[in-house]
Amino acid sequence: MAEHTVIMENTLRKLLAEKKYATLREILITMNPADIAAIFNDLEEERLPLLYRLLPKELAADTFVEMDQEAQELLIRGFSDSELKEVLDELFVDDAVDIIEEMPATVVRRILSQADPEMRKSINEILRYPESSAGSIMTTEYISLRPQMTVAEAITRIRRTGIDKETIYTCYVTQDRTLIGVVTVKDLLLCDDDDRQIGDMMIEKVISVNTHDDQEEVAQMFSKYNFMALPVVDTENRLVGIVTFDDAMDVMEEEATEDIEKMAAIIPSEKPYMSMSPFEIWKNRIPWLMLLMVSATFTGIIISHFESALSKLVILTAFIPMLMDTAGNSGSQASVTIIRGLSLNEIEFKDIWQIIWKEARVAVLCGVSLAIACFGKILLVDYVILGSFAEVTVASPFVIIGVICITLAITVLFAKIVGCSLPLLAKKLGFDPAVMASPFITTIVDALSLLVYFGVANLFLPL
Amino acid sequence: MAEHTVIMENTLRKLLAEKKYATLREILITMNPADIAAIFNDLEEERLPLLYRLLPKELAADTFVEMDQEAQELLIRGFSDSELKEVLDELFVDDAVDIIEEMPATVVRRILSQADPEMRKSINEILRYPESSAGSIMTTEYISLRPQMTVAEAITRIRRTGIDKETIYTCYVTQDRTLIGVVTVKDLLLCDDDDRQIGDMMIEKVISVNTHDDQEEVAQMFSKYNFMALPVVDTENRLVGIVTFDDAMDVMEEEATEDIEKMAAIIPSEKPYMSMSPFEIWKNRIPWLMLLMVSATFTGIIISHFESALSKLVILTAFIPMLMDTAGNSGSQASVTIIRGLSLNEIEFKDIWQIIWKEARVAVLCGVSLAIACFGKILLVDYVILGSFAEVTVASPFVIIGVICITLAITVLFAKIVGCSLPLLAKKLGFDPAVMASPFITTIVDALSLLVYFGVANLFLPL
Repeated sequence: MAEHTVIMENTLRKLLAEKKYATLREILITMNPADIAAIFNDLEEERLPLLYRLLPKELAADTFVEMDQEAQELLIRGFSDSELKEVLDELFVDDAVDIIEEMPATVVRRILSQADPEMRKSINEILRYPESSAGSIMTTEYISLRPQMTVAEAITRIRRTGIDKETIYTCYVTQDRTLIGVVTVKDLLLCDDDDRQIGDMMIEKVISVNTHDDQEEVAQMFSKYNFMALPVVDTENRLVGIVTFDDAMDVMEEEATEDIEKMAAIIPSEKPYMSMSPFEIWKNRIPWLMLLMVSATFTGIIISHFESALSKLVILTAFIPMLMDTAGNSGSQASVTIIRGLSLNEIEFKDIWQIIWKEARVAVLCGVSLAIACFGKILLVDYVILGSFAEVTVASPFVIIGVICITLAITVLFAKIVGCSLPLLAKKLGFDPAVMASPFITTIVDALSLLVYFGVANLFLPL
Repeated sequence: MAEHTVIMENTLRKLLAEKKYATLREILITMNPADIAAIFNDLEEERLPLLYRLLPKELAADTFVEMDQEAQELLIRGFSDSELKEVLDELFVDDAVDIIEEMPATVVRRILSQADPEMRKSINEILRYPESSAGSIMTTEYISLRPQMTVAEAITRIRRTGIDKETIYTCYVTQDRTLIGVVTVKDLLLCDDDDRQIGDMMIEKVISVNTHDDQEEVAQMFSKYNFMALPVVDTENRLVGIVTFDDAMDVMEEEATEDIEKMAAIIPSEKPYMSMSPFEIWKNRIPWLMLLMVSATFTGIIISHFESALSKLVILTAFIPMLMDTAGNSGSQASVTIIRGLSLNEIEFKDIWQIIWKEARVAVLCGVSLAIACFGKILLVDYVILGSFAEVTVASPFVIIGVICITLAITVLFAKIVGCSLPLLAKKLGFDPAVMASPFITTIVDALSLLVYFGVANLFLPL
């Protein structure tokens, strides 16, 4: 796919340099808008408007929607008023809103002044909804039917008004603007009786979302119910728009990326990585790095506190990273599993005791198997091969290895319990569970493992 | 939503206990199959078949598809042959395949023996494709048209054969089984001329996938092109099936979960967390824990090697966890960003130099700001408040703090470079980039930070 695009790009560049516009146009019209946009995004500033103007009107608008924000802005600044109007007329309202949300104020004013009054009204309406709400991702271009219509009348209406609608396949039945039912084009086409009333055949148990519902919830409803479109209603159950499956897919991808970024201690950004400046990336990464660095003070204090013990048996220091990392990894396995389960609604807070019990058993299995493996590894690698214990005189090497392995098993247990319960508690308290992932857990688990290490060592070793 | 389900569940339980079957049925038929399934999944073994049999035929099949594997198996085992046949007749082929893939062999044999011959053939065909391939998630129930048909003939064909098809909205035009075009129901309905030939109005630039393409690629094509369905062809471009958007959504979610699990050093599983046994969870988590534990041997060796240096200036030990964690977090921020970008096709291997240069600049920004903050923090907290440097006599506290901060800045730089380049290299070499995330990076970065730490300390301190 990617290589394909590169080859195509080179061909287009060559034809453009040779000014073979007719051939260029011939090639472009065989291509999909998303593929054209991918190539246009990489073009130089002076070439883009030239190539763009070769596209027929509808393909031009479809391509415009798929391009990235910088290319779009560049084109808009170069458009004459009538060119801008032409593109806007071809856009669906929700796509127009997506574009406007990214543009600087001067460009937005130009777009709004060129949009026809009805579209301007719809755009302004959608722009009023809070970011990431169902209202902000919906489109107002849907097909509405009346319950008194017959199947034949409904089909006629679809044929007359369908051209501008984002989807014609799910039609919404309203009475006094209130949503009362849904009927699909499949139902209409497969119905034998042309005179049957819509009110008699519509599905009345309509699942809808509210304008202020979070977009993440909306996307989850799509993946749960497999809908093609979902109606958006206001607080009085009046139909104001629809969300289509393709927008829900974008939201799903966006939300997964956001979760992943939060889990890696990054403040999420909507901008793609490649178009962010180092300074913008720094701004998203530094807050958590700072916080986690400062919170590592605790581990430092613990080590300082046991300094004299450590100086008596320096070999203990060599195993601190292994103990902390293994505990950290164990904890983040648990936390990430729970965070993802919460995101997908597979796990709820009420399951907390069941989860802790399950993680405790997993932790015992992991802890015991790791401790056994660790004993064998230290004995073979550190004791026999590396001779690391040669200079140890104050205690038996086997007791020291025992202390390390017992610590390992205990910290894995602690780590798994902390790892699984923190995201659940965060959710319960209304915080974002995704933040309770690896880096955060690691910091807590680091301190815990050191305390356990020195505690166990104090019990069995002459420190 | 979730609370809603709990309330409904209690109502249904009460009605079931009171044997009010008519009322139960009345309630169930107002509900969506996915919601009924969610409640049925939680029911006790003896109650499930009773409630299930209250559902009308079509709703029963739709609900069956949405239930989890254990509930499905329970029901199938209780079904008479004719009941099983009834459910199977209502299923789409791809749903039947999904169910069969999860069932033990005895149940599979019963299902296949009750399916009608055509369905059995389709099921067996789909089962032949490798797991996670386009062929394995497709359905063979689509609408195909001939190029010679008129619009009116096409609509008649859709009305006659549409009932069993998973989607009727995208129709595929074939000649000698070869895919030559696509036409949508929207195009057909909105066409003024009933006698127009399909061959004249179809879109010929059909984007299709091959039966052996990976399901992740297929899902990405959906999110790129916003299709409702995508045709699946064999190596000779013959149409063998279609994938619909709802299956693509499931794949997207599955793949994101898989990536997240791999990034947290877990072997991905298709089973939901709540239905996995502790032993199964252990099996998915222990391999990476073991590997990472053993690989921590390197950090141990490095520390052992500098043991005498450490015993001269024990305070250096207190800052090892902070240095390792900060470097680890910095590295995993970079690696996770790149891994996600690769998954979404936003980043390619050819961008490697650009990415390294960008991460280097981010690292300098992060490293310098962290070093400055760290200097202030150690001075204030460790030196002034905690008095941790009181017993240090061999060197000036400020030189020691300087050594720590210089190490921090250098390791952040190393960590970001390693973090961004390893996933790209993994991708290039055909490995899974997601594995190159936090835990793996942490192990490498741990060793690196220790080497830098002791290197810098040797330069400036009398060790």
